[in-house]
Amino acid sequence: MQLVECVPNFSEGRNRDIVDNIVASIQSVKGVKVLDREMDPDHNRSVVTFIAEPDKVGIAAFEGIRTAARLIDMTKHHGEHPRFGASDVIPFIPISDVTMKECIEISRKLGQKIGEELNIPVYMYGNSALLDVRRNLEDIRNKNFQYEELSKSIGDPKWKPDFGPSLMGTAGASIIGSREPLVAYNVNLNTTNLDIGKRIAKGLRAKDGGLTFVKSLAFFIKEKNMVQISMNLTNFSKTPIYRAFELVKLEAQRYGITISDSEVVGLVPMEAIVEASRYYLQLNSFKTDQILEVRMME
Amino acid sequence: MQLVECVPNFSEGRNRDIVDNIVASIQSVKGVKVLDREMDPDHNRSVVTFIAEPDKVGIAAFEGIRTAARLIDMTKHHGEHPRFGASDVIPFIPISDVTMKECIEISRKLGQKIGEELNIPVYMYGNSALLDVRRNLEDIRNKNFQYEELSKSIGDPKWKPDFGPSLMGTAGASIIGSREPLVAYNVNLNTTNLDIGKRIAKGLRAKDGGLTFVKSLAFFIKEKNMVQISMNLTNFSKTPIYRAFELVKLEAQRYGITISDSEVVGLVPMEAIVEASRYYLQLNSFKTDQILEVRMME
Repeated sequence: MQLVECVPNFSEGRNRDIVDNIVASIQSVKGVKVLDREMDPDHNRSVVTFIAEPDKVGIAAFEGIRTAARLIDMTKHHGEHPRFGASDVIPFIPISDVTMKECIEISRKLGQKIGEELNIPVYMYGNSALLDVRRNLEDIRNKNFQYEELSKSIGDPKWKPDFGPSLMGTAGASIIGSREPLVAYNVNLNTTNLDIGKRIAKGLRAKDGGLTFVKSLAFFIKEKNMVQISMNLTNFSKTPIYRAFELVKLEAQRYGITISDSEVVGLVPMEAIVEASRYYLQLNSFKTDQILEVRMME
Repeated sequence: MQLVECVPNFSEGRNRDIVDNIVASIQSVKGVKVLDREMDPDHNRSVVTFIAEPDKVGIAAFEGIRTAARLIDMTKHHGEHPRFGASDVIPFIPISDVTMKECIEISRKLGQKIGEELNIPVYMYGNSALLDVRRNLEDIRNKNFQYEELSKSIGDPKWKPDFGPSLMGTAGASIIGSREPLVAYNVNLNTTNLDIGKRIAKGLRAKDGGLTFVKSLAFFIKEKNMVQISMNLTNFSKTPIYRAFELVKLEAQRYGITISDSEVVGLVPMEAIVEASRYYLQLNSFKTDQILEVRMME
């Protein structure tokens, strides 16, 4: 089954009715599955996670964005998290049987539709960026440049939107794009020594000579009385889970420290788990469609 | 998603029309997915593999059995494989989110329906057996006791069917039951020495002091120029793939032989693959519903 994930961020984290309305709009599209929603009152921001087949995911996002534009007034919005608009950032993520190219197309088609039909200025970011300077989200919108600043600058050629008018309404602007799925992965060590943990975490990070698509930090976890290496794997196809796990093990060995266990936080694409079995069992020619449940989905 | 597999064997392996008709009856039930069908002309026998949710799987099997009873005449059937009836053996197998108990109930309910509505004598076997002596398929039907012999003996109290009449018609009798899923798993060794392969295969087998739910043989595979340990894992929940793999590796080590690769033949339940990742990554608390695709199926 072809599956795309979408994780839109909306600038409302306090009024449950408004968030319910937005989620209902997204869910009104048949075949869409809302997996999660998180409201953060301090940030005054909600994050919705949903999955759908490629032909549905953009339609569902459009419905959510339209409802958010109707119910959220950015001129009255305050919160700690930087934001551009009612529907702030909308990334599309390939999960299963879908290429990044398809996600780029979905996001750009949505950007154009939002610009033309809802008159909302749209900036394309990530893999979907049309301008290189708009590739990194932080280079577009940050603590020092958000809704209020963009409202003043949107007439500048530098801030001409990729789609939609050079004009800010109450819905503000949206940032639409695509990115790789992210796997939140922790390894717990049989030690309470945080200094050692920090050295291990450092050895894993790309900029310190570690693995390209790993972001890592070490924490002391009180409830476990253990040090945890907490990682974000930003491209599990290129830097798979097993490689990160084995490198933690390898680095821990020099201090005589063993691994207690590891954990995937939240959800993970099937391929990321299957690839670990493929590696350890040397199951090199195994195809995901040999899995019975996958056949059922087809 | 709750998923049950059913693998009915029909006593027709030469006439494609008849097999097409049987498969069409099975597929006529909504939500049923036929994964495979194999016709064997020598055995004059077909094996159909399908999956469905628990409330559908028995209905689909019933439709297939009804069509087989209509189109196959056992008085005219010849073939190498032992057989009791038009629909010969019908096992139900728990695949996902389903207990063996549920499969036993499905199979017994079907047995009763077949007996009452189609007037076919039914013997329950495997985990579904109502009599202990009918637990093993080979103790019911074998080379020396099949359709012809049962036709003569069905009046004996010993052969009183579990459901249906003590009377054989042109559809013969059916053997219905439930069993664990079977994983066909091979490990290829970097050696051409079949004697060593045989010793490794022996070390794996339950009766020779190996693993309880492993059946194993060693073959020389010409195309690969390698010895292969070919296994059937008859209960992967109790004897998981990783344990069989690691034991092959361990036994091979004493001869200085390494593993080239391993392979799953055909289809496999997701849980069997996930469990290997859980073991090697020490991902002890990982739940299958953390897999995005599984959420989509729910």
